[in-house]
Amino acid sequence: MEQYRKISYLGPEGTFTEEALIKYLSKAVTLKGGNHNQIAEITKIAYPTITEVIRSVDRGEADHGVIPIENSIEGSVNLTQDVLTFESEAKIIAEIAIPIKHHLIGLTKSSLKNIKKIISHPHATAQCRIYLSQHFPDAEIIAANSTAEAVKKLKDTSGDSAAIGTKIAAQIYGLEILVSDIEDNKENKTRFIVIGSHIAKRTGTDKTSIVCFLKKDKPGSLFNILKEFAEREINLTRLESRPAKKDLGDYVFMIDMEGHVHDREIYEALESLRNKVYLVKLLGSYPVWAG
Amino acid sequence: MEQYRKISYLGPEGTFTEEALIKYLSKAVTLKGGNHNQIAEITKIAYPTITEVIRSVDRGEADHGVIPIENSIEGSVNLTQDVLTFESEAKIIAEIAIPIKHHLIGLTKSSLKNIKKIISHPHATAQCRIYLSQHFPDAEIIAANSTAEAVKKLKDTSGDSAAIGTKIAAQIYGLEILVSDIEDNKENKTRFIVIGSHIAKRTGTDKTSIVCFLKKDKPGSLFNILKEFAEREINLTRLESRPAKKDLGDYVFMIDMEGHVHDREIYEALESLRNKVYLVKLLGSYPVWAG
Repeated sequence: MEQYRKISYLGPEGTFTEEALIKYLSKAVTLKGGNHNQIAEITKIAYPTITEVIRSVDRGEADHGVIPIENSIEGSVNLTQDVLTFESEAKIIAEIAIPIKHHLIGLTKSSLKNIKKIISHPHATAQCRIYLSQHFPDAEIIAANSTAEAVKKLKDTSGDSAAIGTKIAAQIYGLEILVSDIEDNKENKTRFIVIGSHIAKRTGTDKTSIVCFLKKDKPGSLFNILKEFAEREINLTRLESRPAKKDLGDYVFMIDMEGHVHDREIYEALESLRNKVYLVKLLGSYPVWAG
Repeated sequence: MEQYRKISYLGPEGTFTEEALIKYLSKAVTLKGGNHNQIAEITKIAYPTITEVIRSVDRGEADHGVIPIENSIEGSVNLTQDVLTFESEAKIIAEIAIPIKHHLIGLTKSSLKNIKKIISHPHATAQCRIYLSQHFPDAEIIAANSTAEAVKKLKDTSGDSAAIGTKIAAQIYGLEILVSDIEDNKENKTRFIVIGSHIAKRTGTDKTSIVCFLKKDKPGSLFNILKEFAEREINLTRLESRPAKKDLGDYVFMIDMEGHVHDREIYEALESLRNKVYLVKLLGSYPVWAG
């Protein structure tokens, strides 16, 4: 198992990234057969931006960092992909997928019938639109910079307000969950990654993420890349083309595949690929998240 | 040229989608050699969600609709892609790319030196982080549900507040732009699409967007798809794999290519593809946006 002393994450406290971090550590300790009290000894440091979390690992201020990479509704977090691709040597060492559950949070259990104002991040209110239109069609929707800020703000209001936020935020601020799971889409998930400064060990059920930089955007070039994987029966699980920054070619391809870079077929596919494209960058090999 | 009577768009008024809509109509009228007063006769209808804009076209409440599909920082708008793929027969008839410019807006020109509070949508404040940390490190950042709401809110404040918003919002509410172009990333663009109920005419510089539904996620299947395009020297400009909804196969691939579906090579490639995959859905052929 990895050694965790200081872990940075996208703050503030009480948002989904912290929830993912806690879930990950709990699982890592369980797998190791360790004591859950160990988690309390790890220093968690919230940073305000994804870029700063990644830099904290590159500079050694934190040994690991946790950031979102993909949400099933909002899509890929391009900033995470771009900073890892163009500005960092950090490697992905783990992934965490958590269901995005929104809860209606109030000052006291009895405040449900008096709600006239609902506070949350615009994404959260957008993701609970059906519930809100059915139960609070006339409520004023007030924006916050994060779901955690929304819950915190609630403390300064009277009994006519509620917030949409996480269970962990309700706990942090000592507030009540009035209604659980008010999100419209029950399948909504966010995938987070843990980054570190090394390649994670092979477990047998791993995924590998790479970026290919192409010299020219010529017909068939992606086809030639995929040929290397098809010939070796390597299963691709995600593929995305993105515009490259200038001087590095016209396009980059982000490719996720089943297997570890220490697997012979993958290693050979990447070797062969390096002769065809401008650059292949390994973003990491890491265990597939299994609930 | 298309006939425009009623155009729906992602509201509220004064956000980037309305800016894209105005830019598009202005260009369409110029191309036709028409009078710009014609634009004033078109009814613009703001809807609160992307889904409702698309449904307004499917139901004939609007003849066209304008929605965002991709932002260079935030990534693809999965909701737009998913509703067009799974729940609609609307076709993409045009694209519009606009630079995302953020402006600091105040009540009067003289308010710049007194600013203690800055109001905006969390995405906008995140995209102006460097400017804000250099010029207003101690300002309170107040969230709004949209940049337009932020500018509107400003009218209820005293001289100690500013909003981050669009030029068009400053005009709508009769406010002053204190500082232009405060965004950190000058390359930030959003791509919008215009949807309608028909396939746009071939212009000679077109793009075509399709979705391929795969029966099984087996190694090499994407490779077999791309073979059809590589063999015909069709240039792909964007490619993205996305999880499919159940019963329709494991994966869908969103593919953009150069050319029009009425071009012989593209028509033939799609015909051949239909024998290899579960379903090919045409999202539209439309002129490439040229500034």
